[in-house]
Amino acid sequence: MFEVKVQTYWADADPAGIVFFPHFFRFLEQAEEELFRAAGTDRHGLFEANGVWMPRVEAFSKFLKPVKCGSAIRIRLNPQFKGEKTIRYEYQVLDDATGDPAAEGYFTIVCVDAARFKAVPIPDSIVSVIRKYEGP
Amino acid sequence: MFEVKVQTYWADADPAGIVFFPHFFRFLEQAEEELFRAAGTDRHGLFEANGVWMPRVEAFSKFLKPVKCGSAIRIRLNPQFKGEKTIRYEYQVLDDATGDPAAEGYFTIVCVDAARFKAVPIPDSIVSVIRKYEGP
Amino acid sequence: MFEVKVQTYWADADPAGIVFFPHFFRFLEQAEEELFRAAGTDRHGLFEANGVWMPRVEAFSKFLKPVKCGSAIRIRLNPQFKGEKTIRYEYQVLDDATGDPAAEGYFTIVCVDAARFKAVPIPDSIVSVIRKYEGP
Amino acid sequence: MFEVKVQTYWADADPAGIVFFPHFFRFLEQAEEELFRAAGTDRHGLFEANGVWMPRVEAFSKFLKPVKCGSAIRIRLNPQFKGEKTIRYEYQVLDDATGDPAAEGYFTIVCVDAARFKAVPIPDSIVSVIRKYEGP
Repeated sequence: MFEVKVQTYWADADPAGIVFFPHFFRFLEQAEEELFRAAGTDRHGLFEANGVWMPRVEAFSKFLKPVKCGSAIRIRLNPQFKGEKTIRYEYQVLDDATGDPAAEGYFTIVCVDAARFKAVPIPDSIVSVIRKYEGP
Repeated sequence: MFEVKVQTYWADADPAGIVFFPHFFRFLEQAEEELFRAAGTDRHGLFEANGVWMPRVEAFSKFLKPVKCGSAIRIRLNPQFKGEKTIRYEYQVLDDATGDPAAEGYFTIVCVDAARFKAVPIPDSIVSVIRKYEGP
Repeated sequence: MFEVKVQTYWADADPAGIVFFPHFFRFLEQAEEELFRAAGTDRHGLFEANGVWMPRVEAFSKFLKPVKCGSAIRIRLNPQFKGEKTIRYEYQVLDDATGDPAAEGYFTIVCVDAARFKAVPIPDSIVSVIRKYEGP
Repeated sequence: MFEVKVQTYWADADPAGIVFFPHFFRFLEQAEEELFRAAGTDRHGLFEANGVWMPRVEAFSKFLKPVKCGSAIRIRLNPQFKGEKTIRYEYQVLDDATGDPAAEGYFTIVCVDAARFKAVPIPDSIVSVIRKYEGP
């Protein structure tokens, strides 16, 4: 499990004064990038070094409670390997001030070669990062 | 069913040269706004007139095929009422140039009063708009 | 001069209920892409065919009047060549419903080769597009 | 002067692999919010308590050097009062890894009452925050 605090900003809130829901998916990708950084490496650098991208092929979210403009959230990621080309991340989003669950769900990533977008095995240098945070 | 063409732009694409996935959720909300416009009204105006917001409580997407930078897409929305407070939209996203399915899924909306974010029945003026495009 | 109507959406508005200002710069780039489309071509395709990018090196805007959530705007672009590597676009943004000026300013673009980001002359196939809409 | 480090993400980069320029304006607003947080308060809370918004009326940026996907930047803000209703922030953006200047410019804010968007004096509780970081 990996956990990171993410500050939300004015730019992320909508006319209802709460975080606009597509931004949660952006924050989840941001959390994934922080997972790599916490492991002492850099996701984008590993993509370039290995000639791969890791696009999302599925994403699901329940939005449990609105997050007010300017609130901080905590994101918990639980990655699991599904075969040698796929990672599924389950996640929770908590309101940092109250600890209340704000959102939960999962997203699934497939590793593809950068030139043709064909599924390929996840490179070892990326597998070893994910292993550190692999969930139960 | 409601269908609308949405142009994607440079701003929507990522370093892999394809539309960054959270933007699809933005385009879906955009399509919903166009549904109201096609019905001769204005979603935001109806929110204000009725003192409500309609936040998403659930969203799911399969991403079937990357959409290249600068491509147009077609979005098909099939709204269905689930009780008097909830609408579920099923959707398909097609690549406009090829007709290939690019994404599909659903999102669920609950009507809330604007002051307290408590679920309330969907106002008649909004129900009548959705009825025009209600799915099978 | 090139003019295009741009619809703004819920996603573009902030908790004050007006378009969040960085989105105007996004809309300007969108308008530039529509200029190429109006000329029967595709900006991104020309970038790829010529191995160039055209990053902005300067941007200025006066925000004259707030644009309300869900409003349409009209963008007028007046491009001018400044030497063989640079284009300066002057622009106006009008509220489509009222005709009131909403923003005005300019942005400056330099053509660079895609591999090294070094300034290079603007390819003829791009020059000929801009010539059609050259200001004053 | 106020300085804050801002991490940029995949979501902020474009197909050229660099931060898409409108995001710099978003980061500047983010830095302004962090200035209030560094002073032990909350910009949005002060807006609500005082019934004001602080929209930008002018923004200028030179983009001096592309910022690569996933880089961190440092933002320096120098606010100055221009009369009792207006603040002008001068800023520099530095690449955090190299210290190279990446962007510089200014933006100007006017305080307005939240209901009518008419210019009003900046509330004392906001003035006292800005005073702590007022520029030379």
